[in-house]
Amino acid sequence: MLVNGKEMRSLWFEDGCLKLIDQRKLPAKLEIFEAKSVEEVAYAIKEMVVRGAPAIGCAAVYGMAMAKDARKAAEILRNTRPTAHDLFYAIDYMLKKIEEGEDAIKSADAYVESIIEKCRKIGENGKKIIPKNARILTHCNAGALATVDYGTALAPIRMAKDRNIFVWVDETRPRLQGLLTAWELEQEGIDYAIIADNAAGYFMKKGEIDLVIVGADRIAKNYDVANKIGTYEKAVLAKENEIPFYVAAPLSTFDESIENGDEIEIEERSEEEVMNIYPWKPKKARNPAFDVTPARYITGIITEEGIIKLDNK
Amino acid sequence: MLVNGKEMRSLWFEDGCLKLIDQRKLPAKLEIFEAKSVEEVAYAIKEMVVRGAPAIGCAAVYGMAMAKDARKAAEILRNTRPTAHDLFYAIDYMLKKIEEGEDAIKSADAYVESIIEKCRKIGENGKKIIPKNARILTHCNAGALATVDYGTALAPIRMAKDRNIFVWVDETRPRLQGLLTAWELEQEGIDYAIIADNAAGYFMKKGEIDLVIVGADRIAKNYDVANKIGTYEKAVLAKENEIPFYVAAPLSTFDESIENGDEIEIEERSEEEVMNIYPWKPKKARNPAFDVTPARYITGIITEEGIIKLDNK
Repeated sequence: MLVNGKEMRSLWFEDGCLKLIDQRKLPAKLEIFEAKSVEEVAYAIKEMVVRGAPAIGCAAVYGMAMAKDARKAAEILRNTRPTAHDLFYAIDYMLKKIEEGEDAIKSADAYVESIIEKCRKIGENGKKIIPKNARILTHCNAGALATVDYGTALAPIRMAKDRNIFVWVDETRPRLQGLLTAWELEQEGIDYAIIADNAAGYFMKKGEIDLVIVGADRIAKNYDVANKIGTYEKAVLAKENEIPFYVAAPLSTFDESIENGDEIEIEERSEEEVMNIYPWKPKKARNPAFDVTPARYITGIITEEGIIKLDNK
Repeated sequence: MLVNGKEMRSLWFEDGCLKLIDQRKLPAKLEIFEAKSVEEVAYAIKEMVVRGAPAIGCAAVYGMAMAKDARKAAEILRNTRPTAHDLFYAIDYMLKKIEEGEDAIKSADAYVESIIEKCRKIGENGKKIIPKNARILTHCNAGALATVDYGTALAPIRMAKDRNIFVWVDETRPRLQGLLTAWELEQEGIDYAIIADNAAGYFMKKGEIDLVIVGADRIAKNYDVANKIGTYEKAVLAKENEIPFYVAAPLSTFDESIENGDEIEIEERSEEEVMNIYPWKPKKARNPAFDVTPARYITGIITEEGIIKLDNK
């Protein structure tokens, strides 16, 4: 991704330590967080220094690589966040490599390079569904920040930037990851407007949104998709307004052990995340971090191997 | 409404001046704003010291009553906010009374008392649709603050408070009027939780919301309803999840001059309202303040004269 005109990644391994763009500080400040142990990587994942399913997986492989005891490291990392499948996929990959006696850092590097290449291919494949002058809605940040480079939902958008496109960015309460998307789009010189999540339906109904592309945290066997809270709302609204709704995700997001979305564990995070912008504290808040969009609302899933068409309209 | 255990109204006329609970400060601070001229009333409406369709109408009648030139006052007040019908209804009422030579303050008082009585009746009528243990979602604030007393959507909820009910409160970005609702519920001792607007669909799909009640800013002849941005999203989701969706509003909200929702002017407010919580400023934000919910998503409209059933499921 471009950051101030130069190519950069959201995380990289350097001088025996994992360096990550601190996504709690971005876009207000570009700061690098250093994780020197599996515990520090686990902290970075849990506290959302790094977020986005593929990026969490990439952070985890370096956490595994830095650990002395791979089994214990796997346990620590598995207990950070429950919903994203990439995390578990990445940990299992590293356990296997380490058991096979492969070089841990090299294995981690290879994992990250493969994720980047998958995202590039998602961009190539997804570009086909973006017509000239398209006005695209996205939710949360499924950009380079969430995936080391390119992004999932943002990869096709990046690659279609010469098509005079416009991006509607849901601000994505409570954590406002839409700001990360706005920042990436601004770095790339792609035109956009940020909106309150409440306004997406309004612009859909007015005919000002041509398609929706979002990322995914976990995809069940029946193609139900867990993604950032609010994704389900946008999917229902898109169907109601006959707007194509695409999910972009690498195949590592697909969890073959899960039959349908009801089985996906949804993380509920601290109520402070909702209330921390309030000038007054309500007695109670609820804060589910993800929701499940049933496959029937999804037009297609853009992967590195092509587009899985689910369109059943 | 109860405020610290005592009955209070959101606005009242005293010592030749309109006193209003300053809703820009609430719930963090309970401050009284004083408007001593039509210009100051217009400012209070425009800047949302007072908000909510019926309350805006009630502020406007005192603005008219304080003015020397009723025609000019009407023009000033009409140019404050375009969407709520009560404002125009209230101005026309006062113009008529003044032309007929009635006492302006007494006419304004009578208007406000009639609004309060209508809200009380909305509460009585709406109470019937709230079963024991009901878990009710509301959006924005259609409470006593929005209507001088009782509220529209909150009137039935207030009157059903002995039924072990629970209220889900959409925070209602960008202006977070959900906090006003949370504050009113807390004052009344009604159990609730505030949620990001993104989470309402999640809880509907999980079966944790039994019905939805919202207010209205303007209702067209075909029963399309303009209300706070995001209402349309909740209505579509309610229908998809087979959850009854009610609108509560006095008959003064019905605009017989408008055939359907497409004709309702939607106010677009400053992008600063969206961005003022951001630590970084995106290049562009859009901020429509209202949306239109087509009648086909609405189960019924609760008025002071009874419930208009629209259920076409």
